[in-house]
Amino acid sequence: MPITGELFIGAERVATAQTFKGMRAETHQEMPTAFSVAGASEISRACELAATCFDAFRELPLARRAEFLEAIATEIDTLGSELLELAGQETGLAAARLTGERGRTTSQLRMFAELVRRGEWIGARIDPALPDRKPVARPDLRQRKIPLGPVAVFGASNFPLAFSVAGGDTAAALAAGCPVIFKGHPAHPATSELIAVAINAAARGCNVHAGVFSLLNGPGHELGAALVADPHIKAVAFTGSRTGGTALVRIAAGRAEPIPVFAELSSVNPVILLPGALRSRAEALGREFVGSLTLGAGQFCTNPGLVLAVAGPDLERFVAAAADALSQTHPAVMLTAGIQQSYENAVAARASQAAVKTLSRGTAGGSPRHSHGALFGADARTFLGDPALAHEIFGATALLVECSGREQLQSVLQSLEGQLTATLHLDAEDHGSARALLPILERKAGRILVNGWPTGVEVSHAMVHGGPFPATSDSRGTSVGSLAIERFLRPVCYQNLPSELLPDALRDDNPGRLSRRVDGIWQPS
Amino acid sequence: MPITGELFIGAERVATAQTFKGMRAETHQEMPTAFSVAGASEISRACELAATCFDAFRELPLARRAEFLEAIATEIDTLGSELLELAGQETGLAAARLTGERGRTTSQLRMFAELVRRGEWIGARIDPALPDRKPVARPDLRQRKIPLGPVAVFGASNFPLAFSVAGGDTAAALAAGCPVIFKGHPAHPATSELIAVAINAAARGCNVHAGVFSLLNGPGHELGAALVADPHIKAVAFTGSRTGGTALVRIAAGRAEPIPVFAELSSVNPVILLPGALRSRAEALGREFVGSLTLGAGQFCTNPGLVLAVAGPDLERFVAAAADALSQTHPAVMLTAGIQQSYENAVAARASQAAVKTLSRGTAGGSPRHSHGALFGADARTFLGDPALAHEIFGATALLVECSGREQLQSVLQSLEGQLTATLHLDAEDHGSARALLPILERKAGRILVNGWPTGVEVSHAMVHGGPFPATSDSRGTSVGSLAIERFLRPVCYQNLPSELLPDALRDDNPGRLSRRVDGIWQPS
Repeated sequence: MPITGELFIGAERVATAQTFKGMRAETHQEMPTAFSVAGASEISRACELAATCFDAFRELPLARRAEFLEAIATEIDTLGSELLELAGQETGLAAARLTGERGRTTSQLRMFAELVRRGEWIGARIDPALPDRKPVARPDLRQRKIPLGPVAVFGASNFPLAFSVAGGDTAAALAAGCPVIFKGHPAHPATSELIAVAINAAARGCNVHAGVFSLLNGPGHELGAALVADPHIKAVAFTGSRTGGTALVRIAAGRAEPIPVFAELSSVNPVILLPGALRSRAEALGREFVGSLTLGAGQFCTNPGLVLAVAGPDLERFVAAAADALSQTHPAVMLTAGIQQSYENAVAARASQAAVKTLSRGTAGGSPRHSHGALFGADARTFLGDPALAHEIFGATALLVECSGREQLQSVLQSLEGQLTATLHLDAEDHGSARALLPILERKAGRILVNGWPTGVEVSHAMVHGGPFPATSDSRGTSVGSLAIERFLRPVCYQNLPSELLPDALRDDNPGRLSRRVDGIWQPS
Repeated sequence: MPITGELFIGAERVATAQTFKGMRAETHQEMPTAFSVAGASEISRACELAATCFDAFRELPLARRAEFLEAIATEIDTLGSELLELAGQETGLAAARLTGERGRTTSQLRMFAELVRRGEWIGARIDPALPDRKPVARPDLRQRKIPLGPVAVFGASNFPLAFSVAGGDTAAALAAGCPVIFKGHPAHPATSELIAVAINAAARGCNVHAGVFSLLNGPGHELGAALVADPHIKAVAFTGSRTGGTALVRIAAGRAEPIPVFAELSSVNPVILLPGALRSRAEALGREFVGSLTLGAGQFCTNPGLVLAVAGPDLERFVAAAADALSQTHPAVMLTAGIQQSYENAVAARASQAAVKTLSRGTAGGSPRHSHGALFGADARTFLGDPALAHEIFGATALLVECSGREQLQSVLQSLEGQLTATLHLDAEDHGSARALLPILERKAGRILVNGWPTGVEVSHAMVHGGPFPATSDSRGTSVGSLAIERFLRPVCYQNLPSELLPDALRDDNPGRLSRRVDGIWQPS
C-alpha cells in the first residue's frame, strides 16, 4: 500500500504545505515520504467533525459498535507483513516483538468489543418511584453512563501499535462511544498511516461515520497543544514524557472548560529484593533482572529502573550476577536519535556522580547508533539526599540502592513518587517484611508484583496500568485492561422520564438484556 | 452542650489566639462564641495525623467502618433540638427545613454504612493465572479499589447539615476509607462544632482512631488554600462559589503532586417549557415554578434560574401566573449578610439592563435584612449576545428567555455551560421535540428531569448531582448518592501475590463473601 503522508480528517485525506519526514531507527536517516503537518485549520476541522458525529456514534446499538472495533482488528491483520516491516524500519524494534505487539493490539480491540456488547460499563441503575413514601414521594430515578465526547489521544513512541493509533487508549475511547482525534507520534508516521487506513476501512465497512476517527501529524509540540485547547475536545489520553504530559495537563486545566487528562508520565518501577529471596536465589534474580532491564532496549514504561535491598553478602551475589549478565548483553538500537541522545546524556551524567558507582555496562561495540545498558549503585543516604536519582531515565539503565536495614529501606520507599509498578522478591520467610511494606507500596503504585518482573503488562480485567502522580496524572484510571473504558464515561440521571424517551439501557423492558442495579442491588441479565 | 469555639485535631480540642465570631442570620449580629482560627501549625498537624491513621482506617473490617458511620448518625440524633436551634440562628433556615435536612444527613450516613457492608464498591476482580497459555503464561491478577488518602472537605453555607461537616462528601470519603480534614463554613461555626462533637464521640465509641476526622475553622481563604496545598491531602471535595472552587482547582493542579478536586461550582438549571405542556397547564406551571424558585430563599444549587420557551400566548399565560405568584411571596432572610449583598447587587444590575425586563418582584416589606424574589425576561438574541445573562445569581431570581422558535431554543441550549440539572415540561405531543433536545441536555447536564422541578435532590443509587464544568470541576462524579464513593477510590492490581499476603477481598476463600468479577464476569456473593 502506498504511503502518501496525508492526514486523515475522517475519511478525507489531506495534504498540507508544511511536511516532515520519518527516520529509519537503525541508521538515523530520513525515509522517503513527506508527511503533512496539521495546522490550525486541520485541527479545528477534525475536532468539529468529531463533535458533529458524536451523538450518532454514542447511540449506535452496542453490537454495531462492537463490530466496528472487531473490524478494525481484522483490517489491521489484513495489512500483513507490510505493517511489521515499516514499523520495524521506523522504530528499530525486532519483527518478533512487533508481531507480538500486533497480536496484543488486535486482541485488545476484540476484548473491548466483547466488553461493549455486555454493556455493563453503562452502569445502568434504576431506583423505582415510591409514590407513597412519607414525608415526600420518591421520583423514578435512572442512571446510565455516557461518553465524555471527542477525545484527543497521543501516541507513544515505544509501542508503535499497542500504545499508538489503534492502541489501548483509542480502543477504550471508541468503546466508550467517544470519537478520537489521534495525534500521531512523529517517530513512526508511516506505521500510523497504515493503521489509520485500517480504521477508516473498518468505519466504511461497518457504516460508521468516518468522522469518529482522524489522524493528525506534526513533529513539534504546537499540534498537541492546539488539539488539547480545542473546545470540542472533552478528554485527553497521553503516554510519553513527564515534561510533555505535564504541559498538556496545564493546558487542559487552563481552558475555559477544563477537561480531564489521563497522562502516563514517568515511573522507575522499584524492585525490592527481600533477604530470604536474595539468600536462596541471588544469582538467578540477577540474571532475570537484567533480562527485564534490557528487554526492548529498556524502552518500557515498566522497566525496572530502581532496585532496593539491604546490603550484605547475598546482595553482593546478586550484583555480581547482574553485572556479569549485563556485561554480556548486546548494544541495541533505540527508537529515535533523540531518545538515544537523552539516554546517553543521562547515563553519562549519572556515571560522573562521585557518590554513584558504575556496577556494569553492556558489551562495548555496535555502531554509534547503538546504546549499552548500565547498572549503577548508590547507598540509601546518597539516594535520599539527591531527588534526581529517583528520576526515570528512559532506556536500559537501573540504580541499585543499598540500604543499611529494613527501616532505611522503608524510608527509601516512603520517599518515592508514584509508580506504575512495585515488585517484591520474597521467600516464605519474607512474608512478615512484605506485609509491613505492602501498605506503602499500595499508596505508591498501581500494580504490585511478587516474584516477577514489571515488564509485560497483561491486557485483562484485573490489570491496572496506572498509579499516583507522576506515574499518571490521574490515579483513578488505568490505560491497560477493560477498566480503561471508565476514564471516558460520566453518569447521567433521568428523573421521571416517560418510557418512550428513556434510553434503551434504562427502559423497563430492558431490550438489550443488560445487567443493571435496581435499588442498588445487582440484577444479572 | 457548651460551644467552646475550639478546633478539632482528631480528639484534641485546640484554641488559637486568632478568633472570629458567627453571625445570627436574622439580625446580622454577632453571636457570643469566639471561634479559633486554624493556622499553619493546626493545618499540618491535622493532615499529618490523618496520614498517620490512614492505613489502619482503610483496612478496618467493613462492618466496623459501617458501624462508625451509623454511630455518627446516632450521635447527631442525640444532639436533639439544640442542633436545630443553633443551626436556625446561624443560617436563618426554618425549623422544618432543618429537621428534614437532619434526617437527610443521618439517612445518608446510614445508606453509606449499608454500601460499605456490601463491599461492591471495592470492585474486586480476579483474573486467574493461565500457566499453560501460549505464547506466554498469564500471571494471577487481582484488583481492588483502595481509598486515595486524606481528603480535604469544604462545607457549603446553604446546607449546614447535609452538605457540611457530616454531609455527603464527608460520608462518602469516610465510607471509602479516607480520613477527612473538614474546613468548616464560617457561616455556621457552632453547628459545625456540634457535629464535630458527634463524629468524635462516634469514633471513640467505635474505637476508631480519632485522627480520621479533624475540624478546622477560619473566616478567610487562607485556610482552604493551605489545606489543599498540604502534601498529605490526596483529594478535595468542595461545594461553593465558582471563584472559590476555581481557585482551589488551580492550587491542587499546581502542587508537586497534583490531586483531584471534586468541586461543585455553578449552575442555572435550565427549565424548558415545551408547547404542549404550556398550552395545557401554563398557569399551574407558573405557580409551581415560583414555588421551586423561592424555596429556601432560592438558596439551592439546583434552583431553577433559567426558563426557556417559545414566545406566544401560552407563554404569556405562564408569565402572568408566575408574576402573580411571585408578587405574593414573602421576603426572606438569606444565609449571610455577604450572600444577601451579592444577591441584591446582582439583581439590581440585571434590573438595570435595558434589554432585560423585570417581570415580577416578591412582596415589598420585611426588614433591610430580607430579600425579595425577582423574575426577569429577555429575548433569546439578547441572551445569546450577553454571556453574563447565563451566570448564576445565588438566590430567588430567574431569567425567562423567549425564543422565536424551536431552532432558536436549541441554539440557546447549545450556548449554555455545564449544568447540574436540565428540566423539560412536556405533554405527549411534545415527545418529538423532547427527543431532539435530549442529546443536547445529556451533553450539558448531570440530571435530566421531566415534569418536575430541580430542587429536591434524592439521596439514592441512581442520583447524579454533578455535571460538566462549571456545574462541577469533574463531570465523572456525583456528590449525592451512593456513586459518590467512587470519587475517592483508585484501583490497585496484585500480581501473583501469595494468598496470605492478599487483602481479604481478593483471597480465594473470599471471607467477606463479596461479589466479585472473575475473568470479567460478575459473580454474586
